[in-house]
Amino acid sequence: MNALQYMETALDGLRDAGNYRVFAELERHCSAFPKATFYQPDGETREVTVWCSNDYLGMGQSPIVTGRMTEIVQKCGAGAGGTRNISGTNHYHVLLEQELADLHGKEAALIFTSGYVSNWAALGTLLSKIPGIIVYSDALNHASMIEGIRHSRCIKRMFRHNDYRHLRELMAADDPAAPKLVAFESVYSMDGDISPIREICDVADEFGALTYLDEVHAVGMYGPRGGGVAEREGLMDRLTVIEGTLGKAFGVMGGYITGPSILVDFVRSFASGFIFTTALPPALAAAATASIHHLKNSKFERKMHQSVVAKVRAALDAKGIPHMPNPSHIVPVMVGSASKCKWISDILLTDFGVYVQPINYPTVAVGTERLRITPTPLHTDADIRHLSDALCSLWSRCALARAVA
Amino acid sequence: MNALQYMETALDGLRDAGNYRVFAELERHCSAFPKATFYQPDGETREVTVWCSNDYLGMGQSPIVTGRMTEIVQKCGAGAGGTRNISGTNHYHVLLEQELADLHGKEAALIFTSGYVSNWAALGTLLSKIPGIIVYSDALNHASMIEGIRHSRCIKRMFRHNDYRHLRELMAADDPAAPKLVAFESVYSMDGDISPIREICDVADEFGALTYLDEVHAVGMYGPRGGGVAEREGLMDRLTVIEGTLGKAFGVMGGYITGPSILVDFVRSFASGFIFTTALPPALAAAATASIHHLKNSKFERKMHQSVVAKVRAALDAKGIPHMPNPSHIVPVMVGSASKCKWISDILLTDFGVYVQPINYPTVAVGTERLRITPTPLHTDADIRHLSDALCSLWSRCALARAVA
Ligand SMILES: Cc1ncc(COP(=O)(O)O)c(C=O)c1O
Ligand SMILES: Cc1ncc(COP(=O)(O)O)c(C=O)c1O
Repeated sequence: MNALQYMETALDGLRDAGNYRVFAELERHCSAFPKATFYQPDGETREVTVWCSNDYLGMGQSPIVTGRMTEIVQKCGAGAGGTRNISGTNHYHVLLEQELADLHGKEAALIFTSGYVSNWAALGTLLSKIPGIIVYSDALNHASMIEGIRHSRCIKRMFRHNDYRHLRELMAADDPAAPKLVAFESVYSMDGDISPIREICDVADEFGALTYLDEVHAVGMYGPRGGGVAEREGLMDRLTVIEGTLGKAFGVMGGYITGPSILVDFVRSFASGFIFTTALPPALAAAATASIHHLKNSKFERKMHQSVVAKVRAALDAKGIPHMPNPSHIVPVMVGSASKCKWISDILLTDFGVYVQPINYPTVAVGTERLRITPTPLHTDADIRHLSDALCSLWSRCALARAVA
Repeated sequence: MNALQYMETALDGLRDAGNYRVFAELERHCSAFPKATFYQPDGETREVTVWCSNDYLGMGQSPIVTGRMTEIVQKCGAGAGGTRNISGTNHYHVLLEQELADLHGKEAALIFTSGYVSNWAALGTLLSKIPGIIVYSDALNHASMIEGIRHSRCIKRMFRHNDYRHLRELMAADDPAAPKLVAFESVYSMDGDISPIREICDVADEFGALTYLDEVHAVGMYGPRGGGVAEREGLMDRLTVIEGTLGKAFGVMGGYITGPSILVDFVRSFASGFIFTTALPPALAAAATASIHHLKNSKFERKMHQSVVAKVRAALDAKGIPHMPNPSHIVPVMVGSASKCKWISDILLTDFGVYVQPINYPTVAVGTERLRITPTPLHTDADIRHLSDALCSLWSRCALARAVA
């Protein structure tokens, strides 16, 4: 079988399992978010309500952010024009790094082209360069962390999801003299659960380990200044590195780490994924800075967000639509079959103008396929009613299991 | 030694070797390119002429590009708001992929957050998934290709730089039944040499290998429509995959592959670095599309660029400043010592307002440190005179070797 035949067979396998992905083609509209134009495969367009965006607070459509982006595009141009080292460092990158270090109360920050690259490059570099280091990785860590760890080829222990006792056992069994790093997340994006940050830091401290926390789904959304769950719990100083994204609650694109100056300088100096790539456009850096700055000083979006999340949960409960309980803003409606999930999602879109992408393998394990609903402050009561009515009618139509009240 | 001490020592090592990097903080100005404001470490600012940007044609400052970016920011917002699969596919991504497939005469295209990620993810996926595949990699391939190959853990052969006879030897020694892929670049960015694409494709064909060509430093700049060196030589159909960036001649940010639909769909469906990351902002996609579209239809920028490159070479020759001859637009002035290179670059900046970043390890091998001069169509005759005068005065001042006429 030649290479292209092999690929065709692999794609057929995805199709047979119901895991073949068809991307929904959208056009979002400033001032109308969460409404968007959906381009149907037949070329027609229609208006839909987006219920699965990670622009959690709608900041991507905020005039504070789009205005700043426009201003700096007009002033400085589109791209950065080089890698950070070779003519690509712009004043707005430097300002953004200062804003981020301040956000997390750290000495320094370093931006990357994405959150994915920040995890991959930072973990990949730290773990491959520090001699003899052992990494302890939560079993449900994001693909970007897993790839960084895999890249490093260091000794790896996986602890059971959120299980700090298991972490402790693993650490106790290892050489006390070996340098150690614990890598985990605050909000896990698919189940919406939150990790026991304090307990994990306690264990890490006991064994002198560095701690690396991914707050990608929490920055902007938790804590008095939007510093994430660690800020909310007063634990920021317990983490060696806090990593985040500029592409979700901040509404733009890019990723970053914050931490001690030496560590940040080390990653800056040695990470291939940081060094050998064109820098973020200055306008994105400036737009992200405006977004972070705004969310440091305004609690309004966070409060509204939490209130809409509570309303969505209540509306689903009222209709008996089962959703996974969790302490975050993510509302997973479990379906448990790739093809059923896609089928529901297709009907929501075509019959109800409700867009919720089915979540399937490899994003979640087979058998845990779900609709992942992400409310924003901009969803109205009418939007919520329409969503819960649509789900209710579907649940009736196809005899899906109801939640027992 | 604990982990942070280790990092500190490693950074000291860089400093001692003259390889510690200090990023020049710039602010570029639309309409004034290649002039920029330089933020000195002491907080003062001054105007400099940038001579080392990879915004090769100045498209990042073109109103065609910045105008389109502004328009779509205002219309659709800052970020994409999701991964490509989960609400992040925007109409402008789809249009960009069509434009790119057309540019390279391929069935399909797929965009990534950067050229780095496109190489890493595409090679990493193809080479790890296709059973038994052997990769043949040019010895001077870019870090992003090396990391993708390393990630895959497939069988790897390295052929001597541009040496298709060596490639042939290596291929002939391997199992004829094994699937094979040859990975190489067209323009190598540090020496500016161009690979023998036809000969490499001939060898690949002889052994039924896939071919993967990185045209990052050529797209927009070579060929009647800016399709790269393969277009100029009429060889685009000989390549299975053509990879490129949106962040250099196109002046924006992002990367892509183009190739057969099945291969592109395979990478789309299986590449972690494509799947698990926020999509490019729609405004970047639209700006890049405008840039590509313009350069498909206008030869003006390419002609001007070649003419300025020729003038720079002639001006350096006239002053006896040694530069590496090559058939591309890159003008490497060899220095051969990290500290001397940094010293020259510092004086050019402070005494002459000329910014050329010193290129050192790990970007080039130790002992081959250089100034890498990249002319653009927007450098004037006065800029060229000032650059060559500055270099001449420096060469006299510090007894650097002159080129023998
Ligand atoms: C936990 C986590 N970390 C990192 C990332 C990557 O961030 P980005 O989208 O900025 O690449 C994601 C999702 O995309 C994520 O869910
Ligand atoms: C040959 C080559 N390929 C890929 C890249 C990465 O492209 P990007 O800057 O878009 O990440 C670069 C430089 O940055 C390069 O020189």
